[in-house]
Formats: sequence, C-alpha cells, structure tokens
Amino acid sequence: MSDTASAVLIRGGTVVNADREQRADVLCVDGRIQAVGADLAAPPGATVVDAGGQYVMPGGIDPHTHMQLPFMGTVTADDFYTGTAAGLAGGTTSIIDFVIPDPQQPLMDAYRMWRGWAEKAAADYSFHVAITWWDESVRADMGTLVHEEGVNSFKHFMAYKNAIMADDETLVNSFRRALELGAMPTVHAENGELVFLLQQEMKAKGITGPEGHPLSRPPAVEAEAAQRAIAIADVLNVPIYVVHVSCAESAEAIARARARGQRVYGEVLAGHLVVDDSVYRHPDFAVAAAHVMSPPFRAREHQAALWRGLQAGHLHTTATDHCTFCAAQKAAGRLDFSKIPNGTGGIEERLAVIWDEGVNTGRLTPSEFVAVTSANAARLFNIYPRKGCVVEGADADLVVWDPAGTKTLSVATQHSKGDHNIFEGRTVTGIPTHTLSGGRLVYVQGDLRAEPGQGRYVKRPPFGPVFDALSRKAALQAPTAVARSA
Amino acid sequence: MSDTASAVLIRGGTVVNADREQRADVLCVDGRIQAVGADLAAPPGATVVDAGGQYVMPGGIDPHTHMQLPFMGTVTADDFYTGTAAGLAGGTTSIIDFVIPDPQQPLMDAYRMWRGWAEKAAADYSFHVAITWWDESVRADMGTLVHEEGVNSFKHFMAYKNAIMADDETLVNSFRRALELGAMPTVHAENGELVFLLQQEMKAKGITGPEGHPLSRPPAVEAEAAQRAIAIADVLNVPIYVVHVSCAESAEAIARARARGQRVYGEVLAGHLVVDDSVYRHPDFAVAAAHVMSPPFRAREHQAALWRGLQAGHLHTTATDHCTFCAAQKAAGRLDFSKIPNGTGGIEERLAVIWDEGVNTGRLTPSEFVAVTSANAARLFNIYPRKGCVVEGADADLVVWDPAGTKTLSVATQHSKGDHNIFEGRTVTGIPTHTLSGGRLVYVQGDLRAEPGQGRYVKRPPFGPVFDALSRKAALQAPTAVARSA
Amino acid sequence: MSDTASAVLIRGGTVVNADREQRADVLCVDGRIQAVGADLAAPPGATVVDAGGQYVMPGGIDPHTHMQLPFMGTVTADDFYTGTAAGLAGGTTSIIDFVIPDPQQPLMDAYRMWRGWAEKAAADYSFHVAITWWDESVRADMGTLVHEEGVNSFKHFMAYKNAIMADDETLVNSFRRALELGAMPTVHAENGELVFLLQQEMKAKGITGPEGHPLSRPPAVEAEAAQRAIAIADVLNVPIYVVHVSCAESAEAIARARARGQRVYGEVLAGHLVVDDSVYRHPDFAVAAAHVMSPPFRAREHQAALWRGLQAGHLHTTATDHCTFCAAQKAAGRLDFSKIPNGTGGIEERLAVIWDEGVNTGRLTPSEFVAVTSANAARLFNIYPRKGCVVEGADADLVVWDPAGTKTLSVATQHSKGDHNIFEGRTVTGIPTHTLSGGRLVYVQGDLRAEPGQGRYVKRPPFGPVFDALSRKAALQAPTAVARSA
Amino acid sequence: MSDTASAVLIRGGTVVNADREQRADVLCVDGRIQAVGADLAAPPGATVVDAGGQYVMPGGIDPHTHMQLPFMGTVTADDFYTGTAAGLAGGTTSIIDFVIPDPQQPLMDAYRMWRGWAEKAAADYSFHVAITWWDESVRADMGTLVHEEGVNSFKHFMAYKNAIMADDETLVNSFRRALELGAMPTVHAENGELVFLLQQEMKAKGITGPEGHPLSRPPAVEAEAAQRAIAIADVLNVPIYVVHVSCAESAEAIARARARGQRVYGEVLAGHLVVDDSVYRHPDFAVAAAHVMSPPFRAREHQAALWRGLQAGHLHTTATDHCTFCAAQKAAGRLDFSKIPNGTGGIEERLAVIWDEGVNTGRLTPSEFVAVTSANAARLFNIYPRKGCVVEGADADLVVWDPAGTKTLSVATQHSKGDHNIFEGRTVTGIPTHTLSGGRLVYVQGDLRAEPGQGRYVKRPPFGPVFDALSRKAALQAPTAVARSA
Repeated sequence: MSDTASAVLIRGGTVVNADREQRADVLCVDGRIQAVGADLAAPPGATVVDAGGQYVMPGGIDPHTHMQLPFMGTVTADDFYTGTAAGLAGGTTSIIDFVIPDPQQPLMDAYRMWRGWAEKAAADYSFHVAITWWDESVRADMGTLVHEEGVNSFKHFMAYKNAIMADDETLVNSFRRALELGAMPTVHAENGELVFLLQQEMKAKGITGPEGHPLSRPPAVEAEAAQRAIAIADVLNVPIYVVHVSCAESAEAIARARARGQRVYGEVLAGHLVVDDSVYRHPDFAVAAAHVMSPPFRAREHQAALWRGLQAGHLHTTATDHCTFCAAQKAAGRLDFSKIPNGTGGIEERLAVIWDEGVNTGRLTPSEFVAVTSANAARLFNIYPRKGCVVEGADADLVVWDPAGTKTLSVATQHSKGDHNIFEGRTVTGIPTHTLSGGRLVYVQGDLRAEPGQGRYVKRPPFGPVFDALSRKAALQAPTAVARSA
Repeated sequence: MSDTASAVLIRGGTVVNADREQRADVLCVDGRIQAVGADLAAPPGATVVDAGGQYVMPGGIDPHTHMQLPFMGTVTADDFYTGTAAGLAGGTTSIIDFVIPDPQQPLMDAYRMWRGWAEKAAADYSFHVAITWWDESVRADMGTLVHEEGVNSFKHFMAYKNAIMADDETLVNSFRRALELGAMPTVHAENGELVFLLQQEMKAKGITGPEGHPLSRPPAVEAEAAQRAIAIADVLNVPIYVVHVSCAESAEAIARARARGQRVYGEVLAGHLVVDDSVYRHPDFAVAAAHVMSPPFRAREHQAALWRGLQAGHLHTTATDHCTFCAAQKAAGRLDFSKIPNGTGGIEERLAVIWDEGVNTGRLTPSEFVAVTSANAARLFNIYPRKGCVVEGADADLVVWDPAGTKTLSVATQHSKGDHNIFEGRTVTGIPTHTLSGGRLVYVQGDLRAEPGQGRYVKRPPFGPVFDALSRKAALQAPTAVARSA
Repeated sequence: MSDTASAVLIRGGTVVNADREQRADVLCVDGRIQAVGADLAAPPGATVVDAGGQYVMPGGIDPHTHMQLPFMGTVTADDFYTGTAAGLAGGTTSIIDFVIPDPQQPLMDAYRMWRGWAEKAAADYSFHVAITWWDESVRADMGTLVHEEGVNSFKHFMAYKNAIMADDETLVNSFRRALELGAMPTVHAENGELVFLLQQEMKAKGITGPEGHPLSRPPAVEAEAAQRAIAIADVLNVPIYVVHVSCAESAEAIARARARGQRVYGEVLAGHLVVDDSVYRHPDFAVAAAHVMSPPFRAREHQAALWRGLQAGHLHTTATDHCTFCAAQKAAGRLDFSKIPNGTGGIEERLAVIWDEGVNTGRLTPSEFVAVTSANAARLFNIYPRKGCVVEGADADLVVWDPAGTKTLSVATQHSKGDHNIFEGRTVTGIPTHTLSGGRLVYVQGDLRAEPGQGRYVKRPPFGPVFDALSRKAALQAPTAVARSA
Repeated sequence: MSDTASAVLIRGGTVVNADREQRADVLCVDGRIQAVGADLAAPPGATVVDAGGQYVMPGGIDPHTHMQLPFMGTVTADDFYTGTAAGLAGGTTSIIDFVIPDPQQPLMDAYRMWRGWAEKAAADYSFHVAITWWDESVRADMGTLVHEEGVNSFKHFMAYKNAIMADDETLVNSFRRALELGAMPTVHAENGELVFLLQQEMKAKGITGPEGHPLSRPPAVEAEAAQRAIAIADVLNVPIYVVHVSCAESAEAIARARARGQRVYGEVLAGHLVVDDSVYRHPDFAVAAAHVMSPPFRAREHQAALWRGLQAGHLHTTATDHCTFCAAQKAAGRLDFSKIPNGTGGIEERLAVIWDEGVNTGRLTPSEFVAVTSANAARLFNIYPRKGCVVEGADADLVVWDPAGTKTLSVATQHSKGDHNIFEGRTVTGIPTHTLSGGRLVYVQGDLRAEPGQGRYVKRPPFGPVFDALSRKAALQAPTAVARSA
C-alpha cells in the first residue's frame, strides 16, 4: 500500500528522455514514477518541487567506479557511502562498480566481499566482475554470478602484467563463456606487454616522474588492445564494451567495427573529455601524480575525437572510473611513476562537465545528453527502463537540472573524500538543483541528504537486447561439413 | 467527448518501441493511444484484438513516395487513395510525398495542386517540397510553407539535367534558407552532368536497352553528389538528409561525415536492400524496364553495406520511393532507356521485406526495426512521438505483427495498382495481421478496409531536435574581424 | 661533336635518385649527363666540382608556377627570367607554368602569348594549359596543343566564379577529351559557389580584412571539389592530378580513391607544408595580405597530414604556386579581402624548406625527397628520365646539396623580385651549393649566374605511364548490350 | 679477367625497371650487367638473345619460400635445388627462405643447418631467421647473424600455438632488438589463440575435413594479428613487414598505418591473388587438402582488395610461400584438418600469373610489375640495385618476357616436385622465354638448364633505406624528464 506521504511531484519542468523532450510533471510514489504528464495533481502530503525553467532527467548512471578499492594495504578515500553520496550531489543515482578477484581467488569469494563493502551505499549499485585468471571454477562461477546474482557483465584487464592482466587465452575463453551466459564482456584496453617495456625504458632513461606515465602508455598501446578485443569478439560473435576509450585511435577502431556491423560499444570518461595531458608535466609532483590514471589524459585532439564519437553514436556511455587516492597514497610513486596508485575522482562532477562542454556547445542535444549519461548504460547492461528513463513504472531516480545555474568546481566544495579535483576551477553552466534516489529527495539545492545503506543492489538480467539478434546471425552462419566419400 | 464505441484494445502482445520491448496491452480511443500497460480493461463496446504471440509496433512511416505523380501527360498508377491503401495493407500508416514544382512554377501553386490531389488519401500524409529553381519568390514561398503550411523539409534533385536539376548555386541558397527556417534539406544525390554524358555515350555505343540505365548511373555518380551535398551542408552548418542511399560509397560518405560530428542522415529503400542489378539484363524488356528507377539497383555487395549502415546507425530510415508506372508507360523507353519512366512500387511490402531480411537474420533487433521503419523518420521530420511511437497520447497508428506468419509477395495479390512487383515470388516470414490508422482497424487479417479521404494532412513543425544544437555550435564558431589600424 | 670545355665533373658526392643512393661521380658534357660512376676522369678543360660530403640530386622541378601572370592591368613581380633565376639559386631547374586563356579566348592565342613571354627564361620550362570554357574550338585546340606543341596536361579551376571557373559540364567534356589525347587533367579544387557565398557572408558580417580569406575558403570547400574531380575522373576512367592539396580532407580523399585502385595524384606546396593560418590574423595588413593565396594556409594539423601523405605515397609532388604580387598590388584589397591578388612566392626556398622539415626530421629519406621534388613530377608529366633522374643521357640539371649548410631565409637575401618571403626568418639546414642547368654551372656557392633566354621550352609527349593500363582496364569493363527480341 | 665467352647480349628488347621502360640492349659479362643501352655491340663469343617484341626485366625475387622444410619426420617435396630450378623456369632468380629454429634451439645451430641444406641451390638465396623463443642467447645470436652472416630480417609466427608461436613478450623484445641491429622484423599474422579455439570448436561440431581449415582462420583472425604487430612496431618505432597478407582487413590495416606515416610493408602471395576459398569445399579430399595453407585462400572480394593494394602502393611485394607437400603427406590430416601439413607451391608460376591478371587487366603497368615482383623486395631487404634492377653493375639476373606468349599451367608440365598445381588449367598470356641467373642462360624457351650449387648465398647488409629516417624521427621525439624540486 502506498504511503503518499512519501510522494514527490515535480512540476512544470521539461522532461528529457533519450528519444525526446516534453513539458510534463512527474509524480513519484513509493520509490517509483507513478505518472508523467501534464498538470498532474499532487497527492495529499506530497512534496512539490518546482521545476519551472528546468529539465527533469533520469538520474545519472556511472557504469565505471571503484569505491573502497583495496590497494597496497590501504583503500581509496571514497567508500561506497561517501562515493555514492558524492554522486547523488551531482545527479548520479546509480553506479556499476567492479569486483576484482586476485588471480587464483575464487570469484564468489571476491564477489561476496564486495557485496559486503557495498551495503553502506547511499545510492543504487551493481557490479561488473573481473576475470583475472582462468580455470573451470572460473567458468562455473561465471554461471553462478549470472544465474543467481544478477551479474551480466565481466571485465577483462588487458594491462597490468604480472598482476591482473588477462592474456589472450583467458580473453578467448571468457568471451565464449559470456556469450553462452548472455553476459557482456568488457575490456580495459591497453597492451600490458608494451606498457611494461616502455615503463622499463622510461626509467632507464631517467624519466621517473609522472611525465613517464603517459609516455609509457601512448594511444597506440590502447588502440592495439581495443582492436584485439574487438577482433576476438567479432570472431566469437560476442558483443563487446570497451571501457574508458581515451583516444582517437580507439574510437576509430570501434567506429570501424560498428560500420562492419559488429555490436561494439564504447565508454568515455568525463575526465578524458576535458582534461589534457599537460597535467603530467606540472612542476608540482602532487598535482601531476593526482592525475595519474590509466589510460592517461591525452593531447587535446583526442578530446575532440571523443566528443565526435558521442555525437555520432559510435561511443555510447560516459563514466568516471571514480577511484580516489589521496596525495599521501600517490606519494608511493615519488621515485617511480609506475608505483603511483592509478585513479582520479569525478562522480560528482560528471553530469555538469558533460552538460557544460557537450550541450552548451551544441555537440549534444539534451536527449543525447541523457542517452550518454544514463539511458545507454541502462540499455547495454539491461536495466532499462527501470533505470535511465523517465517513464511510468521506472525507479524514481531523477535529477532536476537548471540549465542556467552555474558553479565553480573545486576540491574545496566537493563531497568526495578525495583531496584533489581534476576539474578544479572550471566554472560550469548547468547544474542539478534536486536529486531523487528511489523517490527520496536526497539532494536539494546544495543540501545533501544522503544516508548510508539507502542504496539497493541492482540485479541485472542476462541476455540484453542484442543477444537474440546475435544468435540469429550465428544460426545463419553456422559452418557445415562437406560430405566426402571415405 | 469520447465515443468508446470506437475504442480498440490490443491485448496480449509485445509492444516494440525504438528503445525497448515490453509486454503490454494498448488501448486506442478516439484516434489516439489512451493507455499502454499491463492488463488493461476493454471499455464497453471496444473491439478487442488478440495480439498473443505478436508484436505491436508503430505503423510504418514511408518518408519517400510519389503518388499520383504527373509525368508525360499521364500519372503513376497509384493515386493517393490506392497508394496509401496499399500501405495500410502492409502496415504503413503515414507517407511523406513530394510536391515537385516545375522550374519557374511558383511553389505555392504546386503545393496547392498536390494538396488537392491528396485529399482522397486513406492514410495520413505530409509533403516535402522540391526546390527546382531559385529566385526571391522561391525564398519567400519557402517561408510561407514552413510558417503556414507545416512543411519542414525541402528536396533537391542533383540529377535530371535540363529538367528539375538544382545546380550548386540553388543548393547553396536553398540550404541557407532552410537553416534559417528550421527546415531539413534533403537531396536526391546523383551528378546530373555525368549521367547526361554517360547516357549519350551508352547510346552512342548502341546500348539502348534498360541495361544502359545502371551503366549510366554507376555508384560513383551517386557518391559524388552525396559528398557534395554533405560538404555544402557542412560548410553552411545545416543538417542534411540523403534520400535513397543505394551504394556503399554513399553510405560511407555519410558515415565519415557523421564521424566528424556532422548531422547527416541517410534513407534506404526496401528495394535497394534486397534487389540487385542483374534485373536490368533480363531478356524481357518489360521486366528489365519495370525495375528502372534512380538510383538503380546495385551489385550485391552494396546491399550488405546498406544493411550494415542501418545496423550501425549511420543510415536512419527506410522508404520505398513508391512510384508505379505500368508496362504501357515504361514502353515509352522501348528504344531509349533514358526515356523509360523511372519508378517502382513497394509501399505494401516494405515492412515485411525488412523484417524478413533484417530481423530474421539478426541484422536488426525488433527495436531497431521500429527505429528504421518509423521512429527515426518521425524524429527527423519532427512529428515524434505523435507518430513512430507506441505511447500514451500518440496517434493510434499501429501494426500488429505476426513474426511467424508467412506470405509470398506477388503482383497477383498486391493492393497497389502497379502491374509489377519488384519482390515477386519472395516468401517472407513476419507479416502484419492488423493495421490501425487513426484508431480505426483498416486492415484485419487480409481484409483491407481503407477508405478514401480518411487520411489527414500532417503538419510538421520546424526546428526539429538538432537545430538548437546547431545554433549553439554556430555561435561558438562565429568568425570575428581583426582590428587593424587604418 | 662535343665541346669538352663545357664539361663539368662532379666528384666525390653521393648521388641520390628516387630509388636509391650511391657514391658516384657525375660527368656532364654538352648539356647532358654523360656518365655516373666511380672514379670518373675529368675530360680536358672540364670544371671539377668537389661534392665531398654532399648529395648530388636531380635539379628540382616546380610543376606549379605563375611567372609574369597578367592581373588587373599589371603583372606579377617575377617574370620568366627573374622567377626561373630565383629557382636556379635554390636548386630548381625546371618549371611547369600555366597558360590561362580568358573565357572565350582561343586556346592557341593564349598559348602563343605565354610562349612569347617565356622566351627570357633562365631555366627550362613547359606549360599546362587551362580550360576555362568549352566549345568545339576548345576541343580542337586541345588536340593541336597535344599533337604539335608538346602539352600533355590541362588545368581546370573549380573556383573563381564569374571568371575562370569550369563548371561540371566543362570538366566532364574536358576530362573526356584529355583521356582521348593521352593528357593529364589537373584541377584547382575549391567549390566556387561556396567561396562566393561565404565571401558575401563574411563581408556582410563586417569581416573585410585578410582574415576573411581563410574563413571563406575552409577545408571542406576544397575537399568537396577534390572529391568531385576525383569522382568525375573515376567515372570517366581518366587519371587526375590535384594541384596544391592543402588540407587533410583532400589528402584523405586522394588516399581513399587510390586505395580503390584509381590513378589519382596530389601536389603539395612548400608553403602549405610549413606555414599556418595564424598569418591571416596578423595585425599588419601588409603581412596578412602577403599570405593571401588559394587555397589558404591552414591550421597546423593539416601540415602533419600533408607530410604524412608525401611519406605514405598518396601525395606525389611538391610545388610552390610561385606567383608574386607586391604590397602595392595586394593593397587593392585593403577594404575587401576578396580583391587581394592571390599569390605568394617560394620557388627559391622550396627545396631547402622541404629538406629541412622533411629529411632532417626523418619524415622523408633523401630518395623520397628526390621523388617529391623532381622525379615524380617528371614521371607524371612524362619527361622522365630526361628530367628528375641522375642517369646517363639525362639533361644535366643537377643540384649539389650540402646537408650541413645552413641559411636563414629572408626577403632581404632572396633573388625573387617579390617583396615578401613567406619563410622569413626560418633557418634551414641543408642548402644547395651548386646548380647545373643544361650542364652549365648557374649557381655556385652563392653566386647566381643565370642568364635570360638560356632556358628551353620542354615538350612533353602524351600517353604517360598509366594510359596504357587505363585502356586495358577500360577494354575489360566495356559495357555490352543485351540482346532482346523485338 | 673477364671471359667474354660467358657474355650474353640481349638485343632489341624493352628494358623495364620499376621507374620506367626504355628500348635498350643489355650486355652481361662475368655474371654482371656490363651495359644497358642502345645498339650495344656483342663481344666476341657472346651469346646473343633476340628480345625483339619482348620485355627484359629483373629476374623475380621470391621473398617467401620454404624449400626442404623438415616436417613430421619428412620434408617438403622441393629441396633447394628443385625449388630454385622451378623458380628459374618461371623467371625467378632469387629466393629468401626461412631458418626456423625450434623453441629452445640455438639460432646459430639452426642457421648452419639451413645453410648446409641450401648449398645445392640452383639460384641465389638468402635467409630470414625466425624468432620462435626468447632469452639472452637469442638476443646475442641475432647480433651475430646480422653482423657476421648477412641476415637483415627476422620472422615471427603469431600463430601455431604450442609450437613456434611468438607471444607479445617475444615480439616486443625481438622488435626492439631488430631496430637496434638495423634489421627488419616480419610477421606471419594470425592470432594463434583464436585459431586454436576455433579448431577445437570446428572439430567439436564434426567439421574435420579441409573445409574446417578456413573456418578456423577467418580474416578477422589475420587482421587482429596484423594490427597488433603494426601497433607494436609503431610504439617501438620499428619498420615492419607483414608476410602473406591475404585479406582486405589486413591490407586496410597496413594502409591506415602508412597513412599515419608509419613504415609498414605488405607482401602478397600469387595464390591469394587469384585462388578463392571454394577449393576447400572440393568433394575430393586430396584436392581440398592440397590447398591447405595459412592464411587460407579467401572469398573473391579479398582478391580485389589485394590487387588494389599492390596498385595503390600499400602492398609492396609478391611471393609464393612455396612449400610443397604431396598428397601422401597431406593425408596425415585425413581425419583432422588441423593435421594437414600447411603449404602449396607456385614459385614457377608467380610471374606469369601476376602478369596475366595484373598487367593484362590494366591493374599494373609493366614497371609496377617489376616493382612488386623484384625491385621492392630488393629495396626492403637491402640488396638493391644488385638485385631487382636492370642497371650497369647489377647481378645479371634477368628474365626475357614475351607478352604475347601463352601457356596453360599444370602439374603435368611444372618443374616443381610437388604433385599439385594451385593454378592448374589456367592459361596465361605473358611468359618467360629466357632466364639469366648470374649471367648464365639457365632457361631458354622451355629448356631448363639449372644446375645444383650454382646459386650463391646472398648477404644482406643491415640498416636499409628507412633506418636513418627512423632514427632522426626518434631523436626528435625523445622523451624528456620534468625537473621537480625534491
């Protein structure tokens, strides 16, 4: 039975979905959207939000975060509570984080550990599970995760040699298994052997500072791995999702594969869209190190290519890879850039940065903004339209967006517990005024009302939209034997 | 007040929209969709359609038809009634036809003439208006058409030298004007000078039969014009829609432009997707001539390229260029292929052919099918979601689709008045069982109930989804003067 | 009988041809190379040039110059003597200039006029003839020029509306005729309609200074025309040579066509390789105007694309479009950039600039340098190996090149009569020490010994290397008629 | 002192080099070309060959053969004598074969073994050495081979898992070492993990016949590896040569890399240019198995792509991968296609097949034919102009070619000891009438006069034409450290 005291009516705004804009009110009851339409009446006791002159959009989905990531005996600054709370402050209402088993660690053990850590989340969450090694138990656990735990995507690191790098044999086996299970394989695309060699060579040349980080991971290193993963997926007839595409070459590899009819998807980080690689030559180690993440920030022409990919539709989602290590942690690489913990923040700023540089510049329409910040991720990871759509019946995860509001982004005002902001000093136009998570007003004009544990684990069913088409295609192309006399 | 006697409840089907599939009933009242949801109750007197095991989709939009086209003192076999009726039998509920003024003819005169002819239409219709010449009156009439008549797209023929061909000067002026008005320029892309020369050369070589038609219009002739139109649109910052893209080279030109961030859209004809150019060498003149249309059917590899374009998303809509000339009319070119009236049919078969070759083969998901048969056309020509979407409030233009139903396409059973069927003998799996137009059941399991005059003229507002983004982009890139001392 | 007193022996250098380098002496007698080999003996009376530590290369061929070009009642600053003399000072020993008939002017009249002007040339010269209009007399004169005058290339301006612009009808007719004659069509690729419109728009916006020049001729305007010319050539099976390719988009259009198997060739100007478009915003009108030429200088990323094209082999030749108008002449466009006479210099600097930025940077090998500065032009315009090759029997047009020599380029020291140097202040490493023209030492370590009238008119035979292959291809693809009963 | 009795004068022909054709006689004395010119006098005792109406070209270089290859306790049918003799009969006068050490086998041991086997060769030969494993001894032996043995190229098999496959670590190390040594890395590009998986899957589906061979090695498997090798070479600034490019996707990968300015080279096999994959479905196992080689023959559209690559210049050389296993040997894979020894012949037919399908069709000019059959291989492997050029001083390795001569290729008339001919029944126009090897007439109008041991080992010096340019480029791009205070 509905407790209308919990109802929220968002009145007078322009609702933006991926397919269109419409003037409409939105009524949220019991955590769900009950109605979208003109002149809706507020139920008794309902909270009314005046969205006049504002947009009402699906809350952001960040499909790439690392909250509370254990690393070198410590963990990232943001845990599942502070990280998701920062997201809510910026209009992001769901994350998909990563379970990353150590090589040889049973997948289910790692999965349960991460599930425990995530219980304090303030917003809804889900998990990709990384395949960092291969044997029959891994194959079996993939099945358990899909069938019983609502996992429908598996991540593969093609970098990080001697650690979690998946070699081609693992990729091939895991992709095949994913197809069978109706799950999406995803890849971190960097050629680990090349990175390893270049790191040694940079250090041998006396380049030990953060400037060595991008030098050891040039675009070609990423593009190679992206092309390899795409080619393997093509041969195995599996869809493939490339995380954090950072350079023109990778984006082009995806575009080429799509033009051949392959089901390939690309994700872009907010940081890669607006930050360039000059940061690594900053004279202050702390500043340079604060930007160390992989793939690294790139020369400016790559940013243009990423924007074009989002606009043209060969890149699909935007994320942050939110993974906050503080200066003291980054200092571990003071004498050797390859020891700087990789990671930057951004979950709170993503929507505003993409609106400001995307919509205000004419690169994206508001509908395209919704597509790349929530709807596409929801579709690809098969939780649409529960998430990513302002429609009756969907989860009441919403952001009310003031296109005229401005804000200067800064570590001084952010909610994340990180001690750096890669967008520091950037003034954006277009900011959230209200965020609803599960129908609750969790952010209201600067007032963050996030609470630990209010987030729910989101199960994602297998066999998303393209699997049926892929199996029809496979059936048509099934190889046949030639009959020959003995 | 609603006459519930006119209500139709479609029960038990799977509703397919461009963004998703859902199990839902659809209730249509007074010509509109009143509800989409589970377990809807039938109003008193409502007709109930059992859609169990079937898909419920937006009725097809054919954005490229020529009904009742005057030509050489005669007209096409299908008038606005028979042509739209044939469409309804195949699940297509809207057309966008063309007003084609003669050079020097005032646009408004031509427009009114076509509006008169179309009054007998059985399904909803709208008009693109062709710009076949240029002066200030044309500029003014474009404004009148947009502001008062609901026209938001203008067509340019780059072929047909010495007739309706628009030269670069006209293209440049008309595109500029279209941008100002918020209207979409569209082009028939073939280089008319090359066609003219090649026609002369073929005839000089004694090639006078229909096989001379494709020889005088090779893919490069089309690709040149497509690239030219795209380049002009790029320079002028106008969106551009290329009609009947028939070859790989044009599709690639569009893909390249989109990858650069340009707003370019491509349309494909059902015929070009499945018919190849061997038809022109048929020993029977009547058969070969029946296939004469421009651009011509192409070698098989082009079909694959067009399918890939639809799947990858760099081609957007499907149409037919339905324009039926009968054998007696085609005979005018018995001794000279260049005198064969150009045109073929297909409005009735489009959806089934695209489903059979697109969805059954895994090239397209059902949602992608909806996108390319209705939703995208509705968005681009700014009548979405009134058309192209199964959503509360939309026009009740729907097709109930049986994915297991089969039919052999044939001139013997078609509703079009043409005397040829370019899909003759093709057995398709996936056919309409019911079509609703404006809430009326106009086609029920083989029974066509179309009535003249039931179709309405559809006004299309200007400034569709991308114009605001284009103007933001233009503002950012506005040129500035350099201050210099005298 | 040979006058060995005129002999020159170049001793101890490294001979560079397009296919290889070799340590060899070069003996020149009677205007020809008599021997290339080790340890050649100097004939009695021969001049010996010590080329130790230096390269000996074919003299440069500049396939794109405008000496003594009549314009607005005046002419360019350099006539055929001063222009070719400047070339010799820089190592360039041949030019191909342009005969440009006015529309309606008989081709032969214009041709004879230019031949007369050129008699004072200090170095060898030849002529492309422009096709600026079309009728049967033009067709006939093209034949006369090829058969009797040694012209094997015709130029088409796709820009300059209301002046010398060739429309598609002219292009199509002229290309067809060129194929028949075994002559190479060449194009200045810019869409004249777009340029015209953009010029009006810039001026309407108050942009009247030289900054309006590049704004009215963006890369897309060039790329459109390049693609159009290439497409027409493709359809007509004619080779095509695109002059002064200045932007990435045009270079890519050429690369794409070549990858499809088309015989397309591209020329790049030395200026476009190293000068960027910031010059047009120079606060001094004179400086900005001095750089006005078409196509304009481009943003830096285009330079990289041009270099890559030369290296990869989809661009083939380098030239200058040497066409020197002085400040007083440029001042005609003081109030309207579209009236600034188009043209810049560079014939003296081309080789040094390309060596410095091409060979010293590793973009080109010395052999590739020879290919793009002489050998390829000689091959394409069918005067190889008489020109463009250091081989026995060739014309003794040679440059001795000191890879360690340096020079700062400047209007103060140039030999051209122009009053500006687009490479002003650039210090290059790699300069000529000696130039031989027809076996004469015309430039010796700073001492220019050019003499008027020493240059000879070079006849170029038709049917260069690719024509036979094109006709084999055409024969295989010849269209055939279908036999049909009446 | 010269024994003029051994002189051969080739009189009256058209000499074809990669840069041009010329009417000239060619005089060969003491194994070298002594003169190329008009009206040469025959020395006393010289043999005179009448080449009237014929072409005189450099003898073919086949840069990819496997003579006497040990396999499964047996060896290929052709040893170094019979294989090179067959080559001479077809106009091929040099081969570059492969030393293939077993994993863990010292390189020098393998090298010496192959040198011993090759002593019986009838034509000149050289060796690429394969890097099939990696440790410091391999690094050292690479140096010895380059510095002392005249090896300047190293081969890497990216396929053949569990055998000679080089993993990324080996590729990275070996490429780096090759750069240091001035040697060219080459790759057999197929992803061994994918081949392995697909082989298992085909067999699991009951596809055990030769049709399983191409099904387990689709084009994407090759393209992936080609792109990977190219990317690694790009990152390491090493040139790279891709052997037996068989599909459009690989050719495009090479073209793309070249367009970016990378030094990438591609080789095509005569078989891949004209044989398609229908052979694998031949009902006779012996016929199907006879065509088993890797990469496999491809669908017809790939052949067109390879020809276009040769014409456009992004593919450079042609070879055969001559490796003849007879039916009894092929039968080892009767029940399992993956056990069929890989290899086909062709050394005798290569030139004729490429002339017939390349020159006669207009795809290639005669000069381009010379480029792709000898000159380019000679340049890339740094033995030009000793080989690959008809020029004074070069080895007298020549073929006299009758463009009107015809022959039907067949196992019945071939000189190879193989028992199959992949060109069986093909009638070619354009055949050799005379072959000279080291100045000896070894093939005269059907009479093969090859003798064991007449071939010489050809040392190839390191640091071919592009290495200097690469090192200039590397110097310019050298990374630098940022100075930071402690």
